[in-house]
This record gives sequence, C-alpha cells and structure tokens, in this order.
Amino acid sequence: MISETKPQRIITFGEILMRLSPPDKRLLGQSYQLDFFFGGTEANVAMALANWNEKVDHVSAVPDDFLGESSLKELNRLGVGNLYTQKNYHPLGLYFMEEGASLRSSQVIYNRLYSSFANIAWEDLKWEEILKDANIFYWTGITPGISENTYQGLKRALATAANLEIKITVDPTYRKNLWKYGRDSQVVLKEFISYSNVFIGGTNEINEILETNFDNGKDGFVKASKELMKIYPSIKKVFDKVRVSYGASIQRIYSRYWNGKRYFSTIEIEINPVIDRIGTGDAFVAGIIYTMDRYDEQSALNFANASCALKHTIVGDVNLARKEEIWKIANGQIEGRIKR
Amino acid sequence: MISETKPQRIITFGEILMRLSPPDKRLLGQSYQLDFFFGGTEANVAMALANWNEKVDHVSAVPDDFLGESSLKELNRLGVGNLYTQKNYHPLGLYFMEEGASLRSSQVIYNRLYSSFANIAWEDLKWEEILKDANIFYWTGITPGISENTYQGLKRALATAANLEIKITVDPTYRKNLWKYGRDSQVVLKEFISYSNVFIGGTNEINEILETNFDNGKDGFVKASKELMKIYPSIKKVFDKVRVSYGASIQRIYSRYWNGKRYFSTIEIEINPVIDRIGTGDAFVAGIIYTMDRYDEQSALNFANASCALKHTIVGDVNLARKEEIWKIANGQIEGRIKR
Amino acid sequence: MISETKPQRIITFGEILMRLSPPDKRLLGQSYQLDFFFGGTEANVAMALANWNEKVDHVSAVPDDFLGESSLKELNRLGVGNLYTQKNYHPLGLYFMEEGASLRSSQVIYNRLYSSFANIAWEDLKWEEILKDANIFYWTGITPGISENTYQGLKRALATAANLEIKITVDPTYRKNLWKYGRDSQVVLKEFISYSNVFIGGTNEINEILETNFDNGKDGFVKASKELMKIYPSIKKVFDKVRVSYGASIQRIYSRYWNGKRYFSTIEIEINPVIDRIGTGDAFVAGIIYTMDRYDEQSALNFANASCALKHTIVGDVNLARKEEIWKIANGQIEGRIKR
Amino acid sequence: MISETKPQRIITFGEILMRLSPPDKRLLGQSYQLDFFFGGTEANVAMALANWNEKVDHVSAVPDDFLGESSLKELNRLGVGNLYTQKNYHPLGLYFMEEGASLRSSQVIYNRLYSSFANIAWEDLKWEEILKDANIFYWTGITPGISENTYQGLKRALATAANLEIKITVDPTYRKNLWKYGRDSQVVLKEFISYSNVFIGGTNEINEILETNFDNGKDGFVKASKELMKIYPSIKKVFDKVRVSYGASIQRIYSRYWNGKRYFSTIEIEINPVIDRIGTGDAFVAGIIYTMDRYDEQSALNFANASCALKHTIVGDVNLARKEEIWKIANGQIEGRIKR
Amino acid sequence: MISETKPQRIITFGEILMRLSPPDKRLLGQSYQLDFFFGGTEANVAMALANWNEKVDHVSAVPDDFLGESSLKELNRLGVGNLYTQKNYHPLGLYFMEEGASLRSSQVIYNRLYSSFANIAWEDLKWEEILKDANIFYWTGITPGISENTYQGLKRALATAANLEIKITVDPTYRKNLWKYGRDSQVVLKEFISYSNVFIGGTNEINEILETNFDNGKDGFVKASKELMKIYPSIKKVFDKVRVSYGASIQRIYSRYWNGKRYFSTIEIEINPVIDRIGTGDAFVAGIIYTMDRYDEQSALNFANASCALKHTIVGDVNLARKEEIWKIANGQIEGRIKR
Amino acid sequence: MISETKPQRIITFGEILMRLSPPDKRLLGQSYQLDFFFGGTEANVAMALANWNEKVDHVSAVPDDFLGESSLKELNRLGVGNLYTQKNYHPLGLYFMEEGASLRSSQVIYNRLYSSFANIAWEDLKWEEILKDANIFYWTGITPGISENTYQGLKRALATAANLEIKITVDPTYRKNLWKYGRDSQVVLKEFISYSNVFIGGTNEINEILETNFDNGKDGFVKASKELMKIYPSIKKVFDKVRVSYGASIQRIYSRYWNGKRYFSTIEIEINPVIDRIGTGDAFVAGIIYTMDRYDEQSALNFANASCALKHTIVGDVNLARKEEIWKIANGQIEGRIKR
Repeated sequence: MISETKPQRIITFGEILMRLSPPDKRLLGQSYQLDFFFGGTEANVAMALANWNEKVDHVSAVPDDFLGESSLKELNRLGVGNLYTQKNYHPLGLYFMEEGASLRSSQVIYNRLYSSFANIAWEDLKWEEILKDANIFYWTGITPGISENTYQGLKRALATAANLEIKITVDPTYRKNLWKYGRDSQVVLKEFISYSNVFIGGTNEINEILETNFDNGKDGFVKASKELMKIYPSIKKVFDKVRVSYGASIQRIYSRYWNGKRYFSTIEIEINPVIDRIGTGDAFVAGIIYTMDRYDEQSALNFANASCALKHTIVGDVNLARKEEIWKIANGQIEGRIKR
Repeated sequence: MISETKPQRIITFGEILMRLSPPDKRLLGQSYQLDFFFGGTEANVAMALANWNEKVDHVSAVPDDFLGESSLKELNRLGVGNLYTQKNYHPLGLYFMEEGASLRSSQVIYNRLYSSFANIAWEDLKWEEILKDANIFYWTGITPGISENTYQGLKRALATAANLEIKITVDPTYRKNLWKYGRDSQVVLKEFISYSNVFIGGTNEINEILETNFDNGKDGFVKASKELMKIYPSIKKVFDKVRVSYGASIQRIYSRYWNGKRYFSTIEIEINPVIDRIGTGDAFVAGIIYTMDRYDEQSALNFANASCALKHTIVGDVNLARKEEIWKIANGQIEGRIKR
Repeated sequence: MISETKPQRIITFGEILMRLSPPDKRLLGQSYQLDFFFGGTEANVAMALANWNEKVDHVSAVPDDFLGESSLKELNRLGVGNLYTQKNYHPLGLYFMEEGASLRSSQVIYNRLYSSFANIAWEDLKWEEILKDANIFYWTGITPGISENTYQGLKRALATAANLEIKITVDPTYRKNLWKYGRDSQVVLKEFISYSNVFIGGTNEINEILETNFDNGKDGFVKASKELMKIYPSIKKVFDKVRVSYGASIQRIYSRYWNGKRYFSTIEIEINPVIDRIGTGDAFVAGIIYTMDRYDEQSALNFANASCALKHTIVGDVNLARKEEIWKIANGQIEGRIKR
Repeated sequence: MISETKPQRIITFGEILMRLSPPDKRLLGQSYQLDFFFGGTEANVAMALANWNEKVDHVSAVPDDFLGESSLKELNRLGVGNLYTQKNYHPLGLYFMEEGASLRSSQVIYNRLYSSFANIAWEDLKWEEILKDANIFYWTGITPGISENTYQGLKRALATAANLEIKITVDPTYRKNLWKYGRDSQVVLKEFISYSNVFIGGTNEINEILETNFDNGKDGFVKASKELMKIYPSIKKVFDKVRVSYGASIQRIYSRYWNGKRYFSTIEIEINPVIDRIGTGDAFVAGIIYTMDRYDEQSALNFANASCALKHTIVGDVNLARKEEIWKIANGQIEGRIKR
Repeated sequence: MISETKPQRIITFGEILMRLSPPDKRLLGQSYQLDFFFGGTEANVAMALANWNEKVDHVSAVPDDFLGESSLKELNRLGVGNLYTQKNYHPLGLYFMEEGASLRSSQVIYNRLYSSFANIAWEDLKWEEILKDANIFYWTGITPGISENTYQGLKRALATAANLEIKITVDPTYRKNLWKYGRDSQVVLKEFISYSNVFIGGTNEINEILETNFDNGKDGFVKASKELMKIYPSIKKVFDKVRVSYGASIQRIYSRYWNGKRYFSTIEIEINPVIDRIGTGDAFVAGIIYTMDRYDEQSALNFANASCALKHTIVGDVNLARKEEIWKIANGQIEGRIKR
Repeated sequence: MISETKPQRIITFGEILMRLSPPDKRLLGQSYQLDFFFGGTEANVAMALANWNEKVDHVSAVPDDFLGESSLKELNRLGVGNLYTQKNYHPLGLYFMEEGASLRSSQVIYNRLYSSFANIAWEDLKWEEILKDANIFYWTGITPGISENTYQGLKRALATAANLEIKITVDPTYRKNLWKYGRDSQVVLKEFISYSNVFIGGTNEINEILETNFDNGKDGFVKASKELMKIYPSIKKVFDKVRVSYGASIQRIYSRYWNGKRYFSTIEIEINPVIDRIGTGDAFVAGIIYTMDRYDEQSALNFANASCALKHTIVGDVNLARKEEIWKIANGQIEGRIKR
C-alpha cells in the first residue's frame, strides 16, 4: 500500500483544450459573452490529482502566446508541473459548447486538428527523463487519434513506461470525430492497450476493441473483462462507471470493478440538478489513481464513484472537490447541509 | 402534402414586445441589471418558422427609434421579413417579469396599452398585397384585445385572407388585462373565429368562447371540439397541448388533436428543470404550422408537442431548436447526451 | 387578536453580516467576482417583517464607513428603523460562502469575531427607551455567543423587556464556531431562555439545552416541549420547522407547534430546486411573529411554514415574498403559473 | 442662517423615471442586458438632499406593482419620505439611453406620456398638509409639460406654497418632446415662475421665457437676471452652471450667481473622463438648496459647483457624494488620491 | 451621381472572423469570461454599408455548425445577404485579443490558417452570377494572403469584375503573419492591384507595393499616388486616413485624397478615450464606398473621415453609427450632448 | 552583474490581502457584485518578479480555509513559492475599495488587524533555512505596523538576512491607520532601516524618518539621500518615483535615483486614463529588484519607471506586463498599437 501522505509521482500526456460556452445555458446566438475553462481529459486528471497533493507532471504542447501561457498558469495554480511541455507556434486546441438542459443535449464544436499539441515535436520528448521515478503513466484513446505526432509521442511513452515497469493506466475513449490523419483506430488502440495495466472502461469500450458483443449487465461486464484480460494479459484491473441519464440535468452514476478474481460495485448516486457534466469521467479516473494502491478495493471504488458524482456539481472541467468531501459521499453521507 | 424543402409563405400579425427581467431569478429590487429579449406571441411563431426556413413576414408597428430598429433587426437575424411593418412615434410595447422558481410564480407587468402597435395605422395595411401568395395567416386573441386600431387591422386581414382562401390559424388566447378600449372580447372572438380553419386551444378556450362546460378529459376535449366545429364549420382541426405544473421548475406536457373524425394524442414529456416558460405555447403553434400538411397527423402532433417541450429548455421567447433536435424528442429519444 | 392593518412594534437585536459568494455556484478559485447581500439572522427577521408593514427597529452596531452605511441603507430600503444602531471603528462582520448544489454542501467562512457588533458599547444601549411601546422583542442564540459585549447587551435587553411585559421570542440557535470569548453556552442560553415566551426550535434544540434525549417524532417533540415548559414556565409556545434534505437542491419542509395543550402540524412542501437556503429559518420566525396573535393557530402555522418554503426560492438572506403569495402557498395553491 | 445640523424640510414634486441602458457604452443591439437606475430630475434632488440628512418628502405617483414598489424602496434607501406618493394602475415612466462616449452623443427614448405620474389624481393631493412646516418647495419645468393632471397638481402646489411663504425654487427646464397635452409652455412657465423665489437657470433659459436675446457672457447673464427679476419680482436669486463639452467624455463646469446686487462665480473644473452625465444639473440644484441659507454666498456657490462636477464621476442619476468630499472639491483640493 | 435613396449593389469577399477578448481591459489570465464579436475586415465594410441601406452580399465560407450559423445570422441582422457563402466542415477563423489601454498595446493571437474560409471551394464560386448587376466589388490584401484557395477565388473574382466593368475598390493591407502558403505577397498584390480602380491606402502601403520611398507628408502622399497611378493606370483615386496615436486610448485622425488632379484633406479629429479601435479602417472604407459617387469629393472625404473617427467610440468591429450622426461629425458638430 | 537568464532567489515577507471593490467604478450601494483580487504590497512584488522568472518565495500566514487556499493558489499560478507560509485559524486580511474616477478619490476600508498574518507564529519562522541561498530580502514599513507578531517576525528576518549578507531592500511606507498594537513607528522604522541596503522612497519618506525638512526638488532629494546614508551607512542606494495626479484618471510618473555619488532620473510618462492605481509602487519596486545588478543604472531606473507606469494600465494588484513590453516603454516607444 502507498502511504496516505507520501505523494505518488504521476505523468499524464495529452492536449490542453480551452472550452468556450455561452453563460446561463444560452445558445451562442443569444449572448455576447463566453465562459471559458482550460481542461482536456488527461490534464483534468492531472489537475485533480495535483489538487489532492499528488506530484504530477503533464506533458503537452501549447502555443508560445498569452493563451498558451494562461493555460499553463492554470495548471500551475493547481500544482501541476509543466517542465516537459513544449511551446510552438500553432494555436491552442479549443472547443465551443452550447450547454444542454433538461431534454436539450449539449452541442460541441471542436477546433483542434491543427493545434499546438497536434504539432508536438515528438522526437524531442525525452521519455526516459520524464518518466524516471514515476509510479503511474496515464493516457487515453484521444491522444493517438489526433495526429501522427501524438501517435508517435504516445507510442514511445508507452514503450518507455513499460520498460521502466511503471503502472500504465488507460481510458480508451474512442472519439469518432478524431482519427482523421490516417491510422486505423482499432489497430492503434489494440497495440497500445497491450502495454497497459489498468483499464478504465466498460462493456461498450471492450466490445469496440475486441469486436465482441457482451451485454451491459453485471455478467456481461465480468465476461468482457475476463476476455480482455485473456487477450491482453498485462491488464490486471478493469474499472467502469455506469451512467443513466434522465435528460441533461438529472443523472445517476454507479461504478463496478473486476480485479481478475472478484466483482465489486457501488451504490447508485443521483445528481439533480447536474451543474457541469464535462470531466466527470476524468474525475472517476483521478479517483481510481488516487486510491488504487492506498485503500482497500471497495473503498477505492466508492471514492472513485463519489469523485465522479461530485464532479457533476462543480463548474468547469476539473474535480476540485476536497478529498474529505468525496470520502463523505463515498461513505454515503449525502445531505447537502451548510458547513459553517 | 407540402414538400419538405419548399418553404411555406406565412404571414403573422401582432405586437413585438420587449421582455425585461432581472437575471438569475432575482427580484427586481435585488438587481441593477435586466436581461431583455424581443418577442411577442405572433412574432415568436414567425421567428421559429423562419429559423426552420419557412418564408415568413411579420406585420406590425414599431417606433422609429433605436428600440424599434433593434427589434426588427432581431427578426431579420432569424430571417423574418419586415417589409410591411410600420414605423411611428409611439413607444415599443414591453413587459417586466420577475421569473419564478419552484413554488414561486413569475410576476408580469405590462406596458403596452399606448404602444406603437396599439397605434398602428390600420388603414395603411394593404392586405391584398401582403397576403398575396401566402399559404397561412396566423393570428391570436391578443391582437384584437389591444386597441380599436389592431381590431380593425385584424378584421380586414381576416376578411382578405378568407377571400384568398388562405389557411387561417388561430390561438384564441384571452388575456383579461387587455380589452380596455371598449369592445367585448366574446363578441369579437366569436366573429373572428368564424373565419378560421385551424383552432389551437383546448377545452378551457372552447368553454370560454362557447360558454359551455366541457370537462378537460379526453372525452370532454373531443365533445368540445365537435361542438366548436358545429358552430364554426370553417374550423377543421383542433389542436391542444396540456400542461401539468409541479411548481415553476417542473412541468409535464402532452398534446392532443381532433381532426373532425379521429382523436390523436402524444406521450407526456417531463421538463425538469424548466429554463424559460415564455413562448412554449408559441413553440407548439410553430410546430403545428410547420408540420400540418407535410407529415402524417401523428408525426405532426408529436413534433409540435416536442417543439413545445424543448422550448422550455431554451432561454428567451423563441423556440430556436433545430428541426432535427425536435424530431429526436418527437421520436422519443430523450437522453441529454453531449453531442460531440 | 392584533388587527390585520395595525402594525406591531418589534425590536430585534443582532449582528448585520455581509454575505459574499462566487456567482453561479462556482468555487471561489473559479471566479473574480462575488455576489453580496446584507443579512444576519435577527436582521433578516426584521427586514421580512418591515417589508410586511410591521414597525420594526433593529438594534446593532456597524462601522462608520461606506460598508456600515450601505448595510443600514439596505435596512432602510425595506423599512427597518436604525435609530438605535451604533457606529464605531470596528469592521463589519462578514462571511464567505461557496454555495453547494445537488450533493455538494455549501461551505462557509466567518470573519466576525472582532466586528463592529462584537464591540458594541452595551452600556450605551438605552433599552427602556428602545423597548418602550414595543410588542415583541426577538433574539437568537447567536448574539450571546459573539462577545462579552453582546452578552451584556442582550442580558439587559431581556431584563428590560421582561420587566415591560413585552413578548420575548427566541430562536436559540447554537453555533459551535462562536462562544470563543469565555462564557459557557449552556449556562447562558438557560439563563436567557428563562426570560422568553415563544420558543422557536425543535427536539434537537431542546435536547441540547435540557441535556435530554427526546426523539424527533411527533411524540418526542411534544414531550420535549412539555419538559421545556415545565422547566421554563415563561415559555408558552414551541414552534418547530422540520427539514428533510435530498442534497442541497431539493428540500422538504413541514412545521409543527405545541401551544401547551394541543399539537398542530402542516403539510410537507417540496422545494425543487432550492434557489437560496440562507435565511429560510428566519423566514419561518418572521412568519410566526407576523401571524401569532393575528390569525388562528393552524393558519398561523401554515403561514410560517409557507414563508419558510417560499424563502428557498428567493435569492439573498431575506424573505421578500409578499404576504398574498405566502397565503396562497399556505392554503395549498402551489402551481407556479405566470401571473400576468 | 440655517443651522448646520438642523435639517431643512423640503418637498419635491415630480415623476420617478426608470433609466435603462446597455452596459459598457454598447448600443442596444449589442447587448442582451440593460443597467437600470431610478431617478427623475426632482427625485434626484430629493435623494441627494436626503442623503445629506435633509428631511425630504417626494410627492409623485407610481404604479401599484413591483416596479412602483422598487422605485419607492430606492427613495427609502436614501431616506426620502414617500408618504404622499400615490399608487395607481398606470405604468412607470421610463427611458432608454444609449450612452455616448468621446464624439458620440447619448441617445434617449422616452416612454412617459401615459405614465403613472401623468395620471396622478391631482384633486387628491392635500398640499396644505404636505407643505405644512416645509422650508422649501422644489419644482421644474418638466412637470407641467407632462399632462393636464401634473399641470393642475403643480398649480395648486405653487399657490399653497406661496401662501405658506415657503421658499419656492425652480429649474425651468424646457423639454420640447413634452407639452403634447395642449397647454402652451410659454404661458404656463411664465405663470408658474411668477410664484418662485430662486431661479436656477442661465441666459438661455431666461431668453426662452422672456423672449429676449441676452448673450451668454458675464454681462449678458447679469442683465438677463436683472430683467427676470424686474418682471418677476418674487425672484431674488439666479443661479447658473455653465458647461463646456469636449465630446461626451470631457467636460468643464463653472457656476455663477446673481443675488440682485452682486455677481459671484466659481473656478472652472474639468472632468475627464465623465462617468455619467445624467443628473449633474440636479446635483447643482441640490447643492444650492443645501447651502443657500447655511453658508456665505461664495462658499455656497462653490459647493453647488463642486456637487455638479463630482456627480459626473458617479454612476447613476443621483449625486451620492458625501458632503466632505464635495467641500474638498469646492475648496480646490482636487487630487484623486486613494483615501486609506 | 448615384441617387441618395437608390441603394448600390456591393459585393465583398473575405473571411468572417470571431473576435474573443476578456472584458474590461483585463488580461486573459484575469478573467473567466470573454466578450465576442463577429467581424473580419471585408465583412465589417459589408455590414456598415448594409446598415446604411446599401444592397450588399458578402461572399465567404463558414462552418456548418452553430458558430457558422451564428456568424451568418449576425450578417443577416444588419441586412447583409449570404446567398453565396459556402458551408464546409472546417472551423471558423478566430482571434483572441487582450485590449490595450493608455500605454499598453493590444495583443492579438490569430487562429485562422486552417479555417473554413481558407478551405473555400473556389471552383464553386460563380462570379458571373454573383457579380451580375453589382456596382462595386471590394477586396483587401488579407484575402490573398490566407491560402491558395482564397488566392484563386479572389483572382477569378477580380477578372470577372474587371470584365463586367464593376468598380473595384481595394484596401491592400499587408499582414506579415499571413502569406504562409507559398505565394509571394509582392507579386500577388501587384497583380491584383492592376485590376483595381479605387486604392485605399497611404504612402506606407504604396511604398511597400512599389518598393519606393516617399515620405508621409502631403507632398509625399501626392507623389506616391501619382506614381501608383502611372504604374497602375486603372487606379483613379487614392484615399488615405492618417492616424496619430497618443497611447491606445487617445488617437487623432484626418483623411486625404488624390483624385489624379487635386488633393483634398479633412480636419483632424481627436478621439479621447478610444472605446474600440478594431474596424476603424473598415469604417473609413465603408464611408468612401457610401459617398464616392453620391456626394461632392470634399463632403465624401469628410464623411469617410467622420465614419472612421466615430467608429472609435463604438464597441465591436462594425461602424453601426447612423448616417445622420456621421454627417454631423463630418460637418464639424462635435459636442457629445444628450439627444433627448 | 547578475546573468540575464539566471534567476535571482528572492524572499518577501508580508500580508496577503484580498481586495474587494464594486465593478465599473460604482459605489458599494450601487452594486450587488464585487470584483476581487489577491495582493498585498510585498506579495505584489513577489508575483511580478516570479512572473519574470525570478525564483521567489513569499513568507506569510493565511487561514486554513478556502480563502487561504485560493490566495496561495493565485501565488502558485504566477510561480511564487509558498513553502514557508503558515496556515492558522484567523481570517484573511482584506480591504474594500470604492474606485475613484476623475476628481473622485478612491475610498478604502481595511479589515486586517486580527488577520491570519497579524497572528503569525513568528517563533516558528526558520529564517536561517528560509534565507539560505537568497540574494535579496524585501520588506516594507507596513509589516511591522500590523502586530507584535509581525514586528518580531520581521526583526528576526532582518537580523538573519544581515548576518547572511543578503541584500536588504525596503519600501518604508508609513500607514497611519496601522501601528495600533503599541510600538512607536519612528523607533521601529529607524531600527529596521539600519539593517537595509536599498531604500525605495523619496524626500517625504526620508523627512518622516529623519524628522528633517528637505524639499521635494532634485536638490532636496539628493541632500535627503545623503543625510539618510550618513545616518544609516548600510544604505547604498535611494530610489524614488515621483507622481503627479490630475485627478484619479490622469497621472504622470518619473523616477530618480541616488547611488551615493551620482543622480539619475527618467523622463516623465503620462498615463491617461489610469486603469488601476493599486500596486503601481510595488511595480516600481519589482522593476528595481529585477534590474538592479543586471543592467546599467540608467537602464535599470528606466525599466523600474516604465514598470510603474505600465502597471497603471493593468487591472488588479500585480504588474503582469511582460519584460519586453516594459523595455519598450523604458526605451521610449509608447504608441499603443495593436500587436498582431
């Protein structure tokens, strides 16, 4: 077990994205202002973990301008190191979002295909140095979908991490609006998952990767996890959060976990109303990484589930909840009182 | 059936109103800012239809000042023509609203009795020219309640439209805070409904007009519709949306329709939370006009019901939802996912 | 019975606090703006009552600067008299709040221990003059917990009010983050409650004061109230509101009352979503004071319960709802329509 | 001389207007928000004087709705009494303003001709009671231009005040967009000025009233004042502020005064940038009324001039500057330091 | 001369850009909000002219998403036609700006190189149809600097316009951060200017194109203009505005014009403070196009200069000033009064 | 000379203060929102220097709550280390400010006397460890005026720094609203200045400390500096910025310096309009510390002067200008162009 007080050293690799959305659930044509946040799925995990006092470095590329600087300062603010992040002359990746409400879905427009991160100089990333002393390397299925550069960068990161016996954790999210640069997502994800040790994804993700057809019930999840572990023996743990949506404003979340031998699951938590859904999956990942080797498996899963649930109530991309608040929810104390 | 791609030509006639309300559900005394929107029940129908690519002209009168100009520019923005709208030296009609929440009702103050539209020069409205080539003329019970001028203007519009065999659609809303200029609402509405072909209103509205006492159940609605059609044989269709409120923030909506022979109804849709209730009836009307002769009757009713439901999630007076979004809800796909 | 139209003369004594919180349920680190309100538990009662046309004076101390002036002007705005409020050179008490949502609790930071009110010159308070002609004196358990000065001031106020046979009403709220100046809260509250006639608190509060163990059911409440009245025979009425929270955004409220002989209770009202929970207890108190000797006991309790419920839908610290709105809720008309 | 500490009793009579303008110097079509303020030329004078501790009552009529209530609460906030203000069912007068900047002029749209004040029940105004014990009655040329009702109300007020030997002060502003109800402005203003004792206006105003042609230099002002006093012997004092505009953002102000025997003038003060020009004339009037019989004539004029100048730096309609700040400017201490 | 009331038909071709900047002159790292505007140098000219009732079509390409739609709706709002604007799947061009103040310069970051407009399908632009009946075609030096597609599109537009004997007007702005796709700016601009009839630029622009060295005084300007006309005999008019900056907040503007025979110039106008400098050059261009063949040459230049000056006082990219306001400034009436 | 690229190690010691002010130059009573910033004179210097890549640690005490955390995160954001900052249970020091404009002065209210920093546990500050390897220790006259704890903490810091031969820099600001805890400011400042090497203050500050009477001209400044160096031979340099205010919105700044042998001065820079005056002195100090041993003395003084001037154009407490921007101003390039 990792000590409670000794921070883990964690490396994340991915794009920093700027989110822009009209305030108060307006449509873009109904506003002259936009709220913005810096995020990005891997950076969100990095920021949540650093905010809980882990020692995190995020590896990325940002433009050498005031947007790039501001994005790095936001990571600094929460304690994430940026030593290995490159600066270049391409624009910051960004997306516009019209936030949904009740029956209305959120709409997202990406502007990231020619971004600073897509143009990262992968040959300059010194993974041996970056990953030295790290416990955990975290990647997602988004990064290899962006460009050949990010593919190459990630490939070398994984090989180095595997070599150094660093625990590799993956959320193999597949985004159909990426993968425009030529490589086949199936081939790439299969190759990269074969390096990984902790798989954060459910029956759908496994079905996509293995081209199988497991159902989404408890049994389906366990069978799918077993099949995944059979094919990719490096994978030792499969974590999944299950979401039921009652429109954009009411959601229910529970989590499940297969450790190769035993199935764990949590209670279902209702969030009503949802304040911000972006980054709730990343909050789940951060919860897993934080607790994985520090707490017993049921508590760890409860924490990750509560982290995900609580993120729904926090504006922005990152789970900024304090650990104590999350443990309370994890332990079933859901009351919403005023803490004086 | 009207072609999907060929726009209908639609004429609406009514007041453009400015809505002013304190932000964030504050009371007026708790703010130094007001949010504003341009709307008005008939203009809302016009804007929704133009936004769906119908060819719509709205006939009204606005002041010859920056408020009047801005209101017309908002109609322009959504594609509504203003060629026949007059400019004069009377003020723009407006209303203040303290938005309700949960158990607290919205409060509305009108300032419209001496407005630009109330002073419209009805003799100058060339209805033959305006209505030439139109498919549909839309009016509501609000317009004849404002002033003698608007009464006279509407009277001639209806006579001309009937003469030109344009389909006349009406929402016979009765507002007790209007009708101050002398005419009797009962008499006027009866006269004007006798010109109309599509009646958008339920048992309550029919009871008010016919001075009957039908109940609000399915049978009551059908009987009331039959009675209405008997007395006003020009009316061929009766559409009604039924709302159940659980406070200002949670509402349920379903719709029903009597085509003279057969009863149709939709599923009930819950909206939680309601973002903006203003204009939800107008969204229903727009949905009916858009689909009436383009889709089968059940699909059309589903679309109008979904249009009404979805408007509850959109800030402002107008249903700005795209047709595809509405069809999804109309087809029962209510999930509130993020569309990336 | 007090006449409906003749105002009562009411004196409240307590701190005026400034509330500062980031907008839109953001965390403090996610904003560069704060919303603010002037309130304070006793001042909230004063403002609600003055807004309903009672004749209220609030006794306090504020700084002789633009914050102090602004806080008094806010009381003026709602009709509360400030004639006896002192000005000194200590800062205004204030608190910062991160507003919760759904499962996330609100977080509060106080900055009040060295405030203007904590430093009130209690020797200068002329209670005979202040309380002359008053019907009601209202105090809470917060005031004697702030400082020796406020303890001394309240002690003399109570002695004077008791002497003048003014009805003394108390909400004996215990705040563990106060009581830093040396006196024992148990001893003080027991002493001061012995002067009081109307007790606004439930089983928990009684258990804390009497060091008893009554349960929170109807029977527990009645037994606790009886025991309280036995020990403190000055107390003639015990009012309690019962809150069930489903997270920070959904709450249910009902109220109960023991008049020494008979038990009264109200229906339970659900508030979804909650707009602002601060001051909902004070709205209950204001409802009791307003109705106590004007209406029959069941109506009075219904009004106080509705006042509390409706406050949850109003931004800020004070129940600004009009009496007619509250009576509607009290009479079970909960619909959330638009009032045109 | 009036004692410094003893308040004067002042009665003002006029419309309360709501000002609505887009923020940040935007045009209306560039915003979805409006800032608002309650003001009105006579009410601005009332609020400034009450804020300096004079005992002021403002007589007006407002609607019996949340706008009317909020406007009165704003007067309450600053200490103005509203005992004699009527409530009726006509709308609150209001105006929209696009604020100018540099070379761009402000644009104003009025909506006041059918307002609550225009419909005041003048027969119900009990001027004997209202004016009893008053020192000063203040009116402007706007009030008799609104409607026959306001004309009649003002006529009786002036007769009563003259009878009670109350000092009548007037700012005879002529607004060409008023005077629509039938009376001739020349005739009315001449009649009403004949009741007045203090005239606040310059060569232009005198030329308009007397149909003379005096120039705007010192000599012209003195000659015009003498002529005015000859024709209206009740007038004992003529005060004038002179403004030079260098665009909307830079202005210079000085003031002059003829007491029947001697000419006084102040230094010229430059304001750069102007924050809000509305109400700067009213700030001058308030400065005159406050100082007139309390300070020597030169100091009094300096104060009124400084009050006018300082108002240009304050958002909203009312001069909220403290007396000490104004005296500093009046005494030539213009430095703009931070007061810690 | 063109009739005052008969609109000209004008075609503009260029990118629609979204501007994003933190409010209140903050740096990006000091805000969580951005103000946004739709503009772009050619679109700004189009919008100003349409707002003055010219018949303008803007040719461009925007994404088929809610950003693209909103940008077109903004053009609609002001009356610009979009019939020939393409929709594709590339992102909308945008830029971030930190607005300067006093001595601090504005900072701009572009994100436009892979935009929708850069990817315009130039082969699909039917210039014969688009330009049929047009009086004026307007282009700038920005468009051919973006991509090969925009170069090709513009080349054909110019050839067609020249063929149709449409007056071609150009602002040959050179932006060094463009021209990344391979062509040489000198070569391209020379080629394209050879098609043009009205040149809007001064000594600097001419020196850049001709590689000459004329000074910026009156004589230099006239000599440079003559030289330009000698080399490009199609050019008949050279218009120039001259700006002197005293920091970002104070600027002075005058304009000059060489018609081949005679030199014209205007007075210099000071703007203090500057509200928004973006689009002031475009306001000058719009002023020229509006007046060129409608008014005498001196009046026309005065109008264009006043249009440029007044734009500095208007938020956003487009000169939304009314013609009458501009004529006032053009005629020297600069007072900044309130227009009631 | 210190290398341009090698950061200096700088230690600052002082209070972190939260600034709260109504937006848009409103008075507090005219807003329901406040803008806030974290600053404090020594922390402002620390943040500016870290933002220019110096290695800075700020030593302070903040509350163990979300305000304290947020304030430290702001320092993190800009790269300031907080390793030695204590957390305790006292509130964060704060001040409210009504921002002035033109002739209206800013008004400030402090709430800092019982703050977290005032209660710093000075015995726990390990100055040997903190100051090890530091080049510079910076203090101001504010810190010893707050409390006995801060006096004691600073005393030991100075003794240790002197011992370690670290360069001690001081801005001996005297604030009359501090010094409430008992010690005599004259005695304390004299003692502490005797430890210092660089004195940042002018004739006024020297006169206050030495109880002399030098005038504020060049000669007075040189004589005062010589006298100061005679009495406190540790002082080797005296830097002074001279401000002339034309109201709150227009200011002029120049700087001067006496190095014991020679007088240096800069040009005067006008700032019109001033955006934010808070922290302009701290920007001067940061400019001195950054350049002192890196650049020739005239350049260094020019940089510090430009840093001060440029800060007037930046919102908030800290000079966030980039070094290159400042060098431009320092070199006399003041143009306010748009940097594309």
